[in-house]
Amino acid sequence: MSKITIVVHSGEFDKIMSALIIGNGYLAMGDAVTLFFTFWGLRALMKNGLKRLPLSRMNLFGMGAWMMKRKMKRAGVAGPQRLFKDFRELGGRVIACEMTMDVMGISRSSMEHGLIDEYGAVGMFVLESRESRSTLCI
Amino acid sequence: MSKITIVVHSGEFDKIMSALIIGNGYLAMGDAVTLFFTFWGLRALMKNGLKRLPLSRMNLFGMGAWMMKRKMKRAGVAGPQRLFKDFRELGGRVIACEMTMDVMGISRSSMEHGLIDEYGAVGMFVLESRESRSTLCI
Amino acid sequence: MSKITIVVHSGEFDKIMSALIIGNGYLAMGDAVTLFFTFWGLRALMKNGLKRLPLSRMNLFGMGAWMMKRKMKRAGVAGPQRLFKDFRELGGRVIACEMTMDVMGISRSSMEHGLIDEYGAVGMFVLESRESRSTLCI
Repeated sequence: MSKITIVVHSGEFDKIMSALIIGNGYLAMGDAVTLFFTFWGLRALMKNGLKRLPLSRMNLFGMGAWMMKRKMKRAGVAGPQRLFKDFRELGGRVIACEMTMDVMGISRSSMEHGLIDEYGAVGMFVLESRESRSTLCI
Repeated sequence: MSKITIVVHSGEFDKIMSALIIGNGYLAMGDAVTLFFTFWGLRALMKNGLKRLPLSRMNLFGMGAWMMKRKMKRAGVAGPQRLFKDFRELGGRVIACEMTMDVMGISRSSMEHGLIDEYGAVGMFVLESRESRSTLCI
Repeated sequence: MSKITIVVHSGEFDKIMSALIIGNGYLAMGDAVTLFFTFWGLRALMKNGLKRLPLSRMNLFGMGAWMMKRKMKRAGVAGPQRLFKDFRELGGRVIACEMTMDVMGISRSSMEHGLIDEYGAVGMFVLESRESRSTLCI
């Protein structure tokens, strides 16, 4: 099987970056990739969500999200918005978790529609995962 | 293979919820599921552990565990105790990590026996994982 | 397939311990294991990195890294330095993420060469993962 499913549970800048870099890596090698955004990860799919991702507390190197973004720019590493655009252009699939939206009281009008292929709950995730060679939780 | 093994390393309310919702999702689709609770995740299996799970720091939507529980209730989403009950009734298997218990000095008398199928260490986890289609870390 | 690839994204003491214990568990059962250290996980591979790993905030049992190390010693559980030594002696493979090094401005001279088999980016990770029975994210 040539599909990978990634659960994006966390909403931190570095976790979203990791999910997108890994997702794009698999896509570039010819795999299909589905990202299932749930719990705090859903935040990335809300209007302007990608612009406001907080950095994980684990800033071991002593820097905030702002400094990390500047360092990424200098190192020629794309930010989350560009990585997301690449992900979708390479054919990656994005599912927004409906249960999280229900619990948090988030309506579809708050979501960045251009980023999302489908809205679904755990059943849709399990179907994706069952068709996948690997399922990762980030 | 139709088994899924999930390492539950974290003890936060949202991570335990995620593990149980995903676990129950696979069970409902006919897979076998083993949850291996280790490190902070073990907390969920201690007496009254499920009632006292702290919310992850990542409360991006600005709420505490208490508010999240209320929102879940309103949205008709079951809490961790009910999800755990469902997990076991659907045939899910629960392993408590003995190494964590040894390190933390937790005796079996502190554990909620009704939630646990077996006590085991990393060897038992690897055996479960080797029989599994997917192994997730939450 | 008998290979396991583990992404070590986090740099907390307990997450590094978990990755090494699980990795050594698979190695002991005859699997090949590759650890791909990225983002905060890379910290573990820097000079003296393993000696200075911070404990996750989730210290539910009310203890710091120091107290946990003492408890581990008493329970006869090896620390991260010994586990890492075992990992490599059992034939485990370690990749340091070059992109993280570029972003953080970390040169190879800051790294603990004795711990690292190869420096590589996401492409190398994907190749490892594609040859693996399971890919985990810790």
